[in-house]
Amino acid sequence: MVSARKATQQSTKQHNRDLVFNTILANELISRAEIARSTQLTRTTVSEVVAGLIGEGLVEEAGFSSSVGGKPSIQLSLVADSRYRIGLNLARDRFTGAVVNLRGDLKDTVEIPVQWNDRGQALQLVFQIVDQLLKKGWKPIVGIGVGAPGLINTREGQVVRAVNLDWQDFPLAHLLQERYQLPVAVMNDSQATAVGEFVYGHHQAGSNLIVITVNNGIGAGLLINGQLFQGDNGYAGEIGHVSIPGNEQVCRCGKRGCLETIASTQAIVQRVQAAAGSTETLSLEQVLRRFNDGDATIRQFVEEAGHALGATIGSLSGALNINTVVLTGDMIHFGQVWLDATRQAFQQSVLSQFGQETQIKPGTLDFRACILGASAHLFLENYSLLYLQPEK
Amino acid sequence: MVSARKATQQSTKQHNRDLVFNTILANELISRAEIARSTQLTRTTVSEVVAGLIGEGLVEEAGFSSSVGGKPSIQLSLVADSRYRIGLNLARDRFTGAVVNLRGDLKDTVEIPVQWNDRGQALQLVFQIVDQLLKKGWKPIVGIGVGAPGLINTREGQVVRAVNLDWQDFPLAHLLQERYQLPVAVMNDSQATAVGEFVYGHHQAGSNLIVITVNNGIGAGLLINGQLFQGDNGYAGEIGHVSIPGNEQVCRCGKRGCLETIASTQAIVQRVQAAAGSTETLSLEQVLRRFNDGDATIRQFVEEAGHALGATIGSLSGALNINTVVLTGDMIHFGQVWLDATRQAFQQSVLSQFGQETQIKPGTLDFRACILGASAHLFLENYSLLYLQPEK
Repeated sequence: MVSARKATQQSTKQHNRDLVFNTILANELISRAEIARSTQLTRTTVSEVVAGLIGEGLVEEAGFSSSVGGKPSIQLSLVADSRYRIGLNLARDRFTGAVVNLRGDLKDTVEIPVQWNDRGQALQLVFQIVDQLLKKGWKPIVGIGVGAPGLINTREGQVVRAVNLDWQDFPLAHLLQERYQLPVAVMNDSQATAVGEFVYGHHQAGSNLIVITVNNGIGAGLLINGQLFQGDNGYAGEIGHVSIPGNEQVCRCGKRGCLETIASTQAIVQRVQAAAGSTETLSLEQVLRRFNDGDATIRQFVEEAGHALGATIGSLSGALNINTVVLTGDMIHFGQVWLDATRQAFQQSVLSQFGQETQIKPGTLDFRACILGASAHLFLENYSLLYLQPEK
Repeated sequence: MVSARKATQQSTKQHNRDLVFNTILANELISRAEIARSTQLTRTTVSEVVAGLIGEGLVEEAGFSSSVGGKPSIQLSLVADSRYRIGLNLARDRFTGAVVNLRGDLKDTVEIPVQWNDRGQALQLVFQIVDQLLKKGWKPIVGIGVGAPGLINTREGQVVRAVNLDWQDFPLAHLLQERYQLPVAVMNDSQATAVGEFVYGHHQAGSNLIVITVNNGIGAGLLINGQLFQGDNGYAGEIGHVSIPGNEQVCRCGKRGCLETIASTQAIVQRVQAAAGSTETLSLEQVLRRFNDGDATIRQFVEEAGHALGATIGSLSGALNINTVVLTGDMIHFGQVWLDATRQAFQQSVLSQFGQETQIKPGTLDFRACILGASAHLFLENYSLLYLQPEK
């Protein structure tokens, strides 16, 4: 039996509108004729749709093309500040929220440091950030997107488990919707970061991209055919617990030899502490300082972290044949030493022809990727959110 | 920048037709009202499209529903034998071709054993099979699909490299198109097998599925959101060269420790030969006979093969969060011992919650999967091929 492809619930009109809007979004300036060529829609349809978008204030005419020869054509452009959304990144040590426009510019940011003993107050901190951002008066705000650590059921907007936040089966989207009467998306932070780097990171990766975030934990986000692939339960990209050859460290998950026990920032810090033989608790910042001062032991740990990660990337990008891999997260601070080790192990782990075509490169958006991705996901899935409601 | 989603090149009419046809294909019997519900198309549109499909001979009215209460409704059904296609599986030791109907029944099969020294004649053997199948008089034949080993560029229908067949940058699709004046698809055999199992294997896997073929080589096919995912260059699923911890065997690819050097049928045969210390050349059949007679050494090799494969499946299905994994290929003949070892290693390699939800099960179609998948791929990508051309 052929499984029926997912029936499109969009009317043709809506489909065409999204297609045109997406094409305008993807270009700084574009003419109606170019849109028609790119979308395969008729000139008449494009003109009608564009008129609607201009009416909604989403698009504007922004001058004429200066092409040599031929009639100059009117150039269309997105009105970047015609809609705003709120994005949040609930990182381990600080929650950050921002008001974001349609071009991915952060217009206003609110940040709250989080201590381990704030865990029970996580929801209150989220409310506090959104309250503050809403007070700034950016209008209209069309939705809220949250990137949170742990296992997330994006469809339900539920945090299935986030140890750092002390949340289990926690209906975060529902609670935010109720309080703010706005559409809400909740995603895993690595997945949100992947969407952010894909949409706003200028990686020119075609329609497939792997983005790996290395912090205390390690997670990937997979963009496949231009869309975030979340897997059967929404947990796609959970690569932190892949087994690494020769590694016997016990992981917080209970298994031995997981990638996180050697390649995460936490692993580096713990190994440095253990090597020092002291009971002293070090911060990542302290370890980074010593690393930058030339500490050979730390350099070795960083190289081993890169090797383990590179081999894992080799299996993953090899199996998927995805040629662009973006690395982001705190581990980036270990710079070229870490990148080189990762790339070297990657090259050793894949067939040479795959290795040559694959680029492993740092992200361009740091903590903003998660905020941008979580808030963009909301409307990438449903452009209708951008259309003004009658009562507004 | 948001990358513009792939512009649909289908007209709305064609899109609706494909949607309706696919829905009929996915059901033994279905009424127009049920199609409208499932596709979200209006009753009028569905009736128009169905009339066209009946006119083309692809669909027929097949009686009334016997539902209790309400008006009995007319049930529609695919006319399984209204179109045929030819599928080929170019396996290492034999080429098999078949005429296949729309329900995936093999109507006629031609098989040619292949010797290593036939390599130069591979194309002639393919021609011979297709010639023989065409002579049988099944009409209309709408296309030819080929599953071939090695690296394949599906878009160009080119065999980039197939060592067994002595082909390099070989324009197989073009040569077949020229000779038979029919549309031709050429795919990697593991990818074709995956499509076959997904479409005709009754695995109830939702829209995502991993199918792993273990023969002399090891390859996977990935179904993602209901479609074969081929990656940036068409090589997605090449998992035979993932590194396996503790394995130091040199692989034919030049690296050490690849999955294929421990988990393929060739690896088993070679290990048995080496353990026997003889220069005797064993066939897989001979090894299987000894295994079935209770040979403890072979049993151990089979278990080690399963363990290596299970760990690899753990990384892959874990990273993708795809919960159904189908195993097929000659290795299946090692039965429960191999399956149990694979499942056990899988469970050990993944987070327990993923392990519980994942099913690893044998394929249901053996060599036919490749034939069915290669020939189905052709029209899954373009239903228009099923529409009769004016001149016919």
